[in-house]
Amino acid sequence: MSQRVKVKQILLDDKTNYEVTVKGWVRSFRNNQFIALNDGSTNNNLQVVISQENTDPALVKRITSGAAISVTGEIIPSQGKGQKVELKAQTLEILGDCDPEQYPLQLKNRPSLEYLREIAHLRFRTNTFGAVFRVRHTLAYAVHKFFNDRGFVYLHTPIITASDAEGAGEMFRVTTLDMKKPPLDDAGNIDYKQDFFGRSTNLTVSGQLEGELGAMAFGDIYTFGPTFRAENSNTARHLAEFWMIEPEMAFYELKDNMDLAEAFIKYVIGYALEHNREDLEFLAQRLEEEEKQKPQAERSELKLVDKLEFVLNNEFERLTYTEAIDILKNSKPNKNKKFNYLIEEWGADLQSEHERYLVEKHFKKPVILTDYPAAIKSFYMKQNDDGKTVRAMDILFPGIGEIVGGSQREENYDKLVKRMEELHLPVEEMYWYLDTRRFGSAPHAGFGLGFERLVLFVTGMTNIRDVIAFPRTPGSADF
Amino acid sequence: MSQRVKVKQILLDDKTNYEVTVKGWVRSFRNNQFIALNDGSTNNNLQVVISQENTDPALVKRITSGAAISVTGEIIPSQGKGQKVELKAQTLEILGDCDPEQYPLQLKNRPSLEYLREIAHLRFRTNTFGAVFRVRHTLAYAVHKFFNDRGFVYLHTPIITASDAEGAGEMFRVTTLDMKKPPLDDAGNIDYKQDFFGRSTNLTVSGQLEGELGAMAFGDIYTFGPTFRAENSNTARHLAEFWMIEPEMAFYELKDNMDLAEAFIKYVIGYALEHNREDLEFLAQRLEEEEKQKPQAERSELKLVDKLEFVLNNEFERLTYTEAIDILKNSKPNKNKKFNYLIEEWGADLQSEHERYLVEKHFKKPVILTDYPAAIKSFYMKQNDDGKTVRAMDILFPGIGEIVGGSQREENYDKLVKRMEELHLPVEEMYWYLDTRRFGSAPHAGFGLGFERLVLFVTGMTNIRDVIAFPRTPGSADF
Repeated sequence: MSQRVKVKQILLDDKTNYEVTVKGWVRSFRNNQFIALNDGSTNNNLQVVISQENTDPALVKRITSGAAISVTGEIIPSQGKGQKVELKAQTLEILGDCDPEQYPLQLKNRPSLEYLREIAHLRFRTNTFGAVFRVRHTLAYAVHKFFNDRGFVYLHTPIITASDAEGAGEMFRVTTLDMKKPPLDDAGNIDYKQDFFGRSTNLTVSGQLEGELGAMAFGDIYTFGPTFRAENSNTARHLAEFWMIEPEMAFYELKDNMDLAEAFIKYVIGYALEHNREDLEFLAQRLEEEEKQKPQAERSELKLVDKLEFVLNNEFERLTYTEAIDILKNSKPNKNKKFNYLIEEWGADLQSEHERYLVEKHFKKPVILTDYPAAIKSFYMKQNDDGKTVRAMDILFPGIGEIVGGSQREENYDKLVKRMEELHLPVEEMYWYLDTRRFGSAPHAGFGLGFERLVLFVTGMTNIRDVIAFPRTPGSADF
Repeated sequence: MSQRVKVKQILLDDKTNYEVTVKGWVRSFRNNQFIALNDGSTNNNLQVVISQENTDPALVKRITSGAAISVTGEIIPSQGKGQKVELKAQTLEILGDCDPEQYPLQLKNRPSLEYLREIAHLRFRTNTFGAVFRVRHTLAYAVHKFFNDRGFVYLHTPIITASDAEGAGEMFRVTTLDMKKPPLDDAGNIDYKQDFFGRSTNLTVSGQLEGELGAMAFGDIYTFGPTFRAENSNTARHLAEFWMIEPEMAFYELKDNMDLAEAFIKYVIGYALEHNREDLEFLAQRLEEEEKQKPQAERSELKLVDKLEFVLNNEFERLTYTEAIDILKNSKPNKNKKFNYLIEEWGADLQSEHERYLVEKHFKKPVILTDYPAAIKSFYMKQNDDGKTVRAMDILFPGIGEIVGGSQREENYDKLVKRMEELHLPVEEMYWYLDTRRFGSAPHAGFGLGFERLVLFVTGMTNIRDVIAFPRTPGSADF
């Protein structure tokens, strides 16, 4: 048996008249002669041609969609259209049969995304999910490459945590206590001193606070790990378990932070366009077909690949919250009372409908909003001199809404403690966080990017459950 | 103010007579003139020279260890020894003071590793932990680069899971139920149908089973994420939360698996040697000093960097469990009854003392043991024809013990189900895993590598709590 070669390599080499062994799965088999073979290395199939005369009919019967096969033969120029080369089989072995009566992907009609979500253990084998998860891989790799090339240190912040200082949302409890008979203390409360970690613990909602500790030693760090929200949100944009990227940089002010975030997003999108062009073109076509079902007005103005290139080639619009409020107040949907939440005064929290208006209607490009009211942002954000706003920045994307949330951090110990006290945060417990402001404090900034939202944007998928392998949502933890 | 440049860049460039701004933290200040400035980009400090005449004495007083400063000046050739260039300060600004009376790292004696573990939020600022976590970063990056370059897809397998099929160890419960008044079902048991995911859920102990689903579509995948063990092990080698790398490859047999694992380990170690030479040389020296405290017989025979190069330049010894038992049975410590667990017959589980004997005394190099008794290995491992062993492989490293555990997987549906039934595993619940054997099954294999054990080996640290940022262990979940 000759050397096994991956399909991607054979198609890339574009050479002929050499012998190979190929292993993969049958995607289709027509005329008892032409096998479309896929091995997962690329969305493209290799055409395998078998000789009807020289192949045992019992074997031919077992060549069904989904079967795993090994084929040895010669790569020759293809006569058919659609491919330049094909594999002329000399020997073919069935590694694993696939009963067409049982196989869930053996449907005559194209299976719906909803149905494929129910069989998420098999959906990687479809063209759509093959492309989505190869793009997801490339984006993840580009994240690491971007930061590594710039001297950032990848920090694994803890998943199990005793701190809820960020207040970012509802948390999952982590425990080894007996749920039926938990130990109680003298006051009749659960005695978490007897729990595994000797205290009450949860799954992290963010690695930022620990990330800041790293930044105050290494200068530039980033995290890339799972984060959790126990919110009962059954929407197409929320997951209970998702991956987040959180860079944190010493000696950065708000503008440096915006510059980095914009450069970062452009880099990873550009990297995917360069390395997964075929997957993205396939996904663009898929999206176009999906959108044909929608009324004209709801369809995207740009095709997927054009949209990605548009983001690469245009500067993000930067404006303050205050400027955005002025635009929104005077906007048609506000005047005509079309917004569900009308913008009446400064200080209002922006809803998804407002963010979409700014991005999709007004500016028609990604937008960075800065300097939000302190009251609607987190305690650790740097306070502006105006006494009412903080150096926050949110990046808003078409179709996605907020893709990045970040800020310059308050580096002044006294101001930070005062703000924590106002919000009744446990100042003493947080001594480790405050120590960064006691010992060699410095201006610093950072942001968080929800990785699945980025993958949604780049792949053009519309439900976040379709861009993570095994989604965790209320009522669902399958596989 | 001129452009901020990182210290690593200045030392690398080795140019002089240009103006820069440098920002970082004071490591030391001597003769009221020479500042050793560190910005985390490298373990090396930049010498900053201030003019006593032109600097306000009040400012000079604030130049203390740990203070954050910004200095603008000229890079000039250094007169002193130890560095080629230095920064002649023109302006110096204190960004954040650091009170020497309060600063925990301001100790006269070198702080112990144990003490630094208690102030893990500050220990990144020491030379030792700076080096450890830069090496950890490089190893993590090398992991991604190795697999990406070989066409593997990075799969994020779920952290929260309802499955305990691997049986790899005790698990942490994840819940949003009220611990004081959890809902009960008719039988008086906790009603997990009312929990967040509608069932009982835990933190994952391994992504392997989900990884196999990916391999049967993409061919080659890997995971790199946190995993959890709720074991009450307070040792220098165990963590409750640690990071694991789990590649899984379709069409791989046991030998392919061993070849990949050996190539992988050599690649990442080689990558660290290439990119973090200075950090590793610093850690080598640290280890040497630590070992001077030990009796001669317990000291390492090789220095750290030599040990790493030895691993790169030698093939791992490969032998079967059965061969290893023969060696151990006839070994001196077994005959002299020095082992705590004497090896008497085939089938015995190997203890750490046996693994260390094989690696450190007998072969004096990394060892791959294969074909273990089925009874002491997991259900999913491929059964050999002898009816008693499985195609497992463990890689054993000096000083570390098992660093990799892997196997070829049982791809035969009937054999796998039979084995699961013998072990009383929930065959029906695991339909999704078994589907890979029903639909286009193929030979496949994979392994798991505990990332912290790799970092331990490469950095020469001896306690696993010193190679993860914020260790989680029984009774401890600080920061």
